[in-house]
Amino acid sequence: MTFVMNAAPGALMSAEIDEQPSILAALLTGADAIVSVGEAVRSRAPRFVMLAARGTSDHAALYAKYLIETRLGLPAGLASPSSMTLYGSRPDLRDVLFLGVSQSGASPDLVDSMTVAGECGATTVAVTNNPGSALAGAAEFHVDVRAGAEKAVAATKTYTAELLALYLLLGGSAAEAEALPSAASATLSSDAVPRAAARYRFAERLVVTGRGFGYPTAREAALKLMETSYLSAQAFSTADLLHGPLAMIDSGVPVIAVVTPDSGGEAVRPVVAQLRSSGADVLVVGDDLPVVRDGVAPVLSPVLDILPLQRLAWQVALDRGENPDRPRGLSKVTQTR
Amino acid sequence: MTFVMNAAPGALMSAEIDEQPSILAALLTGADAIVSVGEAVRSRAPRFVMLAARGTSDHAALYAKYLIETRLGLPAGLASPSSMTLYGSRPDLRDVLFLGVSQSGASPDLVDSMTVAGECGATTVAVTNNPGSALAGAAEFHVDVRAGAEKAVAATKTYTAELLALYLLLGGSAAEAEALPSAASATLSSDAVPRAAARYRFAERLVVTGRGFGYPTAREAALKLMETSYLSAQAFSTADLLHGPLAMIDSGVPVIAVVTPDSGGEAVRPVVAQLRSSGADVLVVGDDLPVVRDGVAPVLSPVLDILPLQRLAWQVALDRGENPDRPRGLSKVTQTR
Repeated sequence: MTFVMNAAPGALMSAEIDEQPSILAALLTGADAIVSVGEAVRSRAPRFVMLAARGTSDHAALYAKYLIETRLGLPAGLASPSSMTLYGSRPDLRDVLFLGVSQSGASPDLVDSMTVAGECGATTVAVTNNPGSALAGAAEFHVDVRAGAEKAVAATKTYTAELLALYLLLGGSAAEAEALPSAASATLSSDAVPRAAARYRFAERLVVTGRGFGYPTAREAALKLMETSYLSAQAFSTADLLHGPLAMIDSGVPVIAVVTPDSGGEAVRPVVAQLRSSGADVLVVGDDLPVVRDGVAPVLSPVLDILPLQRLAWQVALDRGENPDRPRGLSKVTQTR
Repeated sequence: MTFVMNAAPGALMSAEIDEQPSILAALLTGADAIVSVGEAVRSRAPRFVMLAARGTSDHAALYAKYLIETRLGLPAGLASPSSMTLYGSRPDLRDVLFLGVSQSGASPDLVDSMTVAGECGATTVAVTNNPGSALAGAAEFHVDVRAGAEKAVAATKTYTAELLALYLLLGGSAAEAEALPSAASATLSSDAVPRAAARYRFAERLVVTGRGFGYPTAREAALKLMETSYLSAQAFSTADLLHGPLAMIDSGVPVIAVVTPDSGGEAVRPVVAQLRSSGADVLVVGDDLPVVRDGVAPVLSPVLDILPLQRLAWQVALDRGENPDRPRGLSKVTQTR
């Protein structure tokens, strides 16, 4: 990407973070098309949903899993693409909705999984930022997240656009999401991030945790910190944290806890108290890092909760002298088979 | 656990690691009972399988997911217990097999999920090391992994017993597993571990990777290293590694790669070469850490591949002056809701 050589470090990622309120607004304006695809898909009466994605889109898929289980009342699981692509599995997928999520729609193993899923009887849907992509072509239905070209390697705007598109696809309504763009804008205006970033200037390790609808945010925040700042950031469901990883947390390993405005978030609070009483440094998203959620349904909170964490990853990278637009060793489209 | 106060540090975990060949042999002797449960469950003709577990047992469940997808040809997914326990989801689980895996069978959220799954129409099976446990009681079918009381907090023998029990439950045969106990014994006799452990004496971070049937092993090895040595050990599917985490690997972050004797392992080899050419320190399980697999079907390799990694976690902890029998902050049964 030679055209960014002279830009300020992180300029691309910063601009894409700031674009998010207007992208969410535009997506809501065109919500009818996505809602219609959702209705067409649900008319097939799927009994089960398989989700296939990698990287950042995998975290959007995890959000979709909670939506499907709690709002559609269907069991859902994340697909292991290697079962079909490497081991040649041909499962019986009648009555199954196979939902692939990918920014580029170009990962060969996802395209192959989608094709095989259709051959095995599944209803197939691709959610991508590229209607001309191979993944969109391999699926029966396509949802365009319309985030515009994403130039920074670390995905930001395509993530929140995927979340909102999945919400609309899976039974959500544009009316319930109306306040989202202004809430996103207000959340991004907070000046709490630079101060929070300073405490991670010399951290080598970090743990991010959340539960239920807060867990995809924890996973995505850890990935952003790894990609841009080379921190060893690990995400754990707050429930799993108590089954082993807790042992490695002491006063030297900072914790970021995502507290959503729902029963998942309520389950995180006592663990935050436990960690703090044992001397751990805990930053609470939705509190120490403010999230403006006025008028936004709790189920949409993940679209907002990730925003200060994207900005945090960007800031920590800059503070460390890294260029978050150009992480070492990564390219925008990953060729996995 | 006052009775271990005078024992040598790590004595419990070491003894339990060494017990594994005889536990596997005993489990094979009683294989018919497990195979019978498997036949009864499959006679219900499930269309989809949900797996519920936490911690080490979650990695056994992930192994089961690959078995179900590649050998039974059914789609499978890992359940998010919070959907049912925190968010009150009541999905339609007719034609679903709900399979819970837990050493103690005592985690309240798993017991609750199992109960709700049964009420929602699922066929329910518990795989535990305690036939008198609440989880066993909440399920229609129970499989006892018969590993004997596990006293060390870091689970070892119950993990491999769970793997073999799941294999027998999900279409495997005792005949195909006949060579497993002697192969396990030979693998544990290798003297490669102390030398390998020395290179991690001062490591703070570590990445473990694998793909397909090697991925559960990578996850479990990372957890053992976190629990016993407080290393920040992260596991990634080798495919996901290329989608972001690769950025944080440089010559200062060692990598352990699990190469299984199948197409999953073959897909890991080029990534090992790529990592090494970029200066990363890579230890290959099945090569640098030998695994004796003579006469053992490739699908059973995960039962063997974890053995040198359990011993490695134990050795690294001892080298660092930690007591792997008593990780700080952890207890044997975790109460998550």
